[in-house]
Amino acid sequence: VTAPTPAPVQPFGDRLAAAVAARESQIVVGIDPDPARLWPVAPERADDARAALAAALGVEILEPAVEAAVGADAPRAVAFEAAVAVLAHCRALIDAAAPACVAAKPQLAFFERLGTAGRLVLELVCEHARAAGLLVIADAKRGDVPSTAAAYAQSLLGSTATRFGVIPGLGADAVTLNPLLGRDALAPFVDAAREHGAGVFVLVRTSNPGAADVFDLPLATGEPLWERLAALVAELGEGELADVGAVTGATVPEHLVRMRELMPRTPFLLPGVGAQGGSVEALAPAFAAGRAGGLVTASRSIADAGEATGGDPAEAARGEAERLRATAWSLA
Amino acid sequence: VTAPTPAPVQPFGDRLAAAVAARESQIVVGIDPDPARLWPVAPERADDARAALAAALGVEILEPAVEAAVGADAPRAVAFEAAVAVLAHCRALIDAAAPACVAAKPQLAFFERLGTAGRLVLELVCEHARAAGLLVIADAKRGDVPSTAAAYAQSLLGSTATRFGVIPGLGADAVTLNPLLGRDALAPFVDAAREHGAGVFVLVRTSNPGAADVFDLPLATGEPLWERLAALVAELGEGELADVGAVTGATVPEHLVRMRELMPRTPFLLPGVGAQGGSVEALAPAFAAGRAGGLVTASRSIADAGEATGGDPAEAARGEAERLRATAWSLA
Repeated sequence: VTAPTPAPVQPFGDRLAAAVAARESQIVVGIDPDPARLWPVAPERADDARAALAAALGVEILEPAVEAAVGADAPRAVAFEAAVAVLAHCRALIDAAAPACVAAKPQLAFFERLGTAGRLVLELVCEHARAAGLLVIADAKRGDVPSTAAAYAQSLLGSTATRFGVIPGLGADAVTLNPLLGRDALAPFVDAAREHGAGVFVLVRTSNPGAADVFDLPLATGEPLWERLAALVAELGEGELADVGAVTGATVPEHLVRMRELMPRTPFLLPGVGAQGGSVEALAPAFAAGRAGGLVTASRSIADAGEATGGDPAEAARGEAERLRATAWSLA
Repeated sequence: VTAPTPAPVQPFGDRLAAAVAARESQIVVGIDPDPARLWPVAPERADDARAALAAALGVEILEPAVEAAVGADAPRAVAFEAAVAVLAHCRALIDAAAPACVAAKPQLAFFERLGTAGRLVLELVCEHARAAGLLVIADAKRGDVPSTAAAYAQSLLGSTATRFGVIPGLGADAVTLNPLLGRDALAPFVDAAREHGAGVFVLVRTSNPGAADVFDLPLATGEPLWERLAALVAELGEGELADVGAVTGATVPEHLVRMRELMPRTPFLLPGVGAQGGSVEALAPAFAAGRAGGLVTASRSIADAGEATGGDPAEAARGEAERLRATAWSLA
């Protein structure tokens, strides 16, 4: 069994530019669910999430069957209940933030720690984001040797042929990548993305304090390592707005002007706004490539907005997402 | 609910040295299942795998329920059948290779592309490897900002507390990591590993042709980037044989002497033997830190040994694993 030949696809840069224009937003809501800090959701939302998980598993009776077979306190029953709560939270967060956003960025680690249920929750969260009109950026930060990179690309962007049929991948619109292993390790992702009209965002300089340890190392040629990574990203991308983007930490805004010089057509994924200490106003240089040239990511600052105000978490999240949207839109 | 306080644990370096001595092997069998190249397995092995998957899901009736609900050709039914076949293959491979090996190294990408079933198959493969007396090295190559790194560490090495109870992680004995994001991004993994008597293996220089693009970049201080990564690994490790190891590509054996100078107490995970072109004999410098100082990884050269000889895949795999074991053991 082989996958069907895909129809001609619109390049990712064009899709991204059209989405930003249509939604009048450059905001990406990060989906990083912490099971210890979930929003309280209405009972009907929890019921909906439970039904969606059971239906996705193809068996309405899964939950009682699990409890009967392994006991309600057994790890897999725990994982199912946690999965229901996480899914309900993520859907509520997406519903609240989506009107002000162009994309959702689920952070895969926060789903993988849910165990077997995690991938299913991730798939359902991506479906929900797409239904809300959002692009999906899978924040995976994968990087591996070419044969393994190809397998990750199947999991996130493509599909996997088996003698039983085709296993669909996550169908992400874009995925974040780690470039440490070099060009040939990025190629399987770039090829798979291009085939599906998707994109990749390659780490050029992250926003954590320790990023200076490696990204900022001065090379023999004079520039820091991250400038070499930026040049690699610029080289790999195709399209008026390129289909190979860059993750460019917003906690070092003085780097953004130089990054835009090195990557004139590259969309930037800008983490670090809000909880990580960056400000939207500092990002203006990113938008020199057009409004879709800078995507502004915010995770905790949206999801936890209600904790500061003491108000309804969904209303606070919507307000914060809209505040970010209006600020960023006014800069470009 | 919080996780119980762990009992004092034996450091990873000590556990690794003891395992190598007890099994008289430094061989790590890579588990990289390709659904298009699975071993033919006896019907009772397939039945066992099917029963194990169904039991792990807590519901004996899962498969007919899935087919009834979504049809036998629907993606999730396909994924279940593929999962059964992959699990049966991996168990057969482990049974064949384990007597000559000290560890199994499942490559997470090859399970993730199976979708929701993938994590469950991965968990069952790890259980099978442990039951065969092997350490489990989760080849994840994760690397992310600290809060996300902590979530990956929960998924692979620790566990995740929720209000419904604790979700256990994979329980790996070690995990591979990408150091591009710096010290603070490695710390959550190192801390979690140490707490559980587990280890980490940090990429210092990989074996793919493109690895030269970044790992070999000359720094302003004169040395290539990978030497700086080696120094970081040496600094982070604790123990007579350190609990922070290094992934050191065996396709550049001339680097091994220098790596051993920079990381005198570090266990090396040496990929690239066999299908990727390396030879075991070139690895002798790795063993200057003792027999457990060099773990020799082989994936396709073991799993596909039968294709060269035309014989039974399990017998050929066992023969190739034993040949590698005897060769490596004679070098140290």
